[in-house]
Amino acid sequence: VPVYVSVAGPGEAAPEVLEGAEAVGRELARRGAVVVCGGLGGAMAAACRGAAAEGGTSVGLLPGPDRESANEWLTVAIPTGMGELRNGLVARAGDALIAVDGGYGTLSEIGFALKLRRPVVGLGTWELDAVVVAEDPADAAERALALAQGRKR
Amino acid sequence: VPVYVSVAGPGEAAPEVLEGAEAVGRELARRGAVVVCGGLGGAMAAACRGAAAEGGTSVGLLPGPDRESANEWLTVAIPTGMGELRNGLVARAGDALIAVDGGYGTLSEIGFALKLRRPVVGLGTWELDAVVVAEDPADAAERALALAQGRKR
Amino acid sequence: VPVYVSVAGPGEAAPEVLEGAEAVGRELARRGAVVVCGGLGGAMAAACRGAAAEGGTSVGLLPGPDRESANEWLTVAIPTGMGELRNGLVARAGDALIAVDGGYGTLSEIGFALKLRRPVVGLGTWELDAVVVAEDPADAAERALALAQGRKR
Amino acid sequence: VPVYVSVAGPGEAAPEVLEGAEAVGRELARRGAVVVCGGLGGAMAAACRGAAAEGGTSVGLLPGPDRESANEWLTVAIPTGMGELRNGLVARAGDALIAVDGGYGTLSEIGFALKLRRPVVGLGTWELDAVVVAEDPADAAERALALAQGRKR
Repeated sequence: VPVYVSVAGPGEAAPEVLEGAEAVGRELARRGAVVVCGGLGGAMAAACRGAAAEGGTSVGLLPGPDRESANEWLTVAIPTGMGELRNGLVARAGDALIAVDGGYGTLSEIGFALKLRRPVVGLGTWELDAVVVAEDPADAAERALALAQGRKR
Repeated sequence: VPVYVSVAGPGEAAPEVLEGAEAVGRELARRGAVVVCGGLGGAMAAACRGAAAEGGTSVGLLPGPDRESANEWLTVAIPTGMGELRNGLVARAGDALIAVDGGYGTLSEIGFALKLRRPVVGLGTWELDAVVVAEDPADAAERALALAQGRKR
Repeated sequence: VPVYVSVAGPGEAAPEVLEGAEAVGRELARRGAVVVCGGLGGAMAAACRGAAAEGGTSVGLLPGPDRESANEWLTVAIPTGMGELRNGLVARAGDALIAVDGGYGTLSEIGFALKLRRPVVGLGTWELDAVVVAEDPADAAERALALAQGRKR
Repeated sequence: VPVYVSVAGPGEAAPEVLEGAEAVGRELARRGAVVVCGGLGGAMAAACRGAAAEGGTSVGLLPGPDRESANEWLTVAIPTGMGELRNGLVARAGDALIAVDGGYGTLSEIGFALKLRRPVVGLGTWELDAVVVAEDPADAAERALALAQGRKR
């Protein structure tokens, strides 16, 4: 069974944030992790693109009622029709969460992940005591996987 | 149509937090607002007790599959069977959110409420720029109602 | 603690169906039950109108993201933002379900209620072995309450 | 973008039902469809096993809070923590639904799928006018894909 890592990030973001998200997706895929995200554009699409570049798997849990808004890099796109409530599903689906930049949607995913005892790794995101700060995308992937495996044991 | 105000707070809390939550429920009911919460004990039960003392209405959106865990002060108890995901329902159901103390569950509700453009008023809770800090329970109720009505207009 | 009875029915319906739904709401309220429904128009609004006429309580679990589409007879209106998935919440929230006429949405609520071991009473609805056929609205309310209380014991 | 077909069926079933479900999974995978199901055992596991035998992809939307109950044949396992409400997610995630045998859970998925305008193909399941009856698993897969593509156009 692979490790699943959720990636939370904004649907619109500056180029350096997108680069970071793409690198996170790449580093996760290199380590065999499945990437889970909200399935839309911006940092979500970037993480999926990174995963795809390494032949990895990504899953998008979409807010809308159909697959139309899915980004093109997803391996699997699941429309939930639950709107923003799908953030809770994204947080739950990962064995750990990596938050990349992010606004209030990302904050809700961090809150959910922590409430559900999922470890959270941050890359330029909300500064909270429980969020493990990563130095760069490879470090974020490394830490998320180590914490996820520690949690499973 | 009454204004609905969600109250987020921990299921277990110190006496002064419970007192604050009860006063928040009381002040909301006095102003004719419907109190929405997660329906369990601690700060949630306290807010409902406060609302009940003023003859107000409170609604609990429970995480479990039945009404067994509902606190005794609720006017209406709705079991969602969605676990912690019901936090998103609580945040959505209010025209504004008052966060009282709180842990990660409360953080997820704050994130959700902000994402859904609900104003958030805080009483000894997470310090975030978008959270309006209240001085006391009456001030929290007053501000939440003013912000909720401003949002509706 | 009152008994909660969910009422499932179409958002648009013939006058005799609406009359039946209104009578169901009335008969439930007379017996002290809380009416839960999908909160929109048609048979849902009729059931709420009936409950209101007897001074009863009705709760609407709305599919949309806000309270705008709520019918005017509801005591409590909760926007879920979950679209048709809120049918599952409606089925879960009742100690029993009364299905009035109904299309596929009602069918999904019947399936859910049966899966969740809620007794289902039908009034001119889908004919399934597990659905108890009522003769008229008073009979439907009577049976739903008896079955709900049997289930609780 | 591949076509997604949801497969609904019981968690415990007679050998011939399991054989049918496995054949449905196989026939869907042969035609390039992604199989979506509730992720547990019985007919769900059988459909995933069939898809896996053909190198296909299957996605399980689990009722529980973690991946522990996932069957071993799933490509992707998503814990929803929503209990039986995840049936609505399963119905929504497919461009069509194939119902194999089935009890009340399957009935709820059929109701949901029809409500959401997804075509439903049945193999020894609930007899409803709107359910297209298939002769055998290959016929079920063939019809589901044809109907799904007609819906998309």
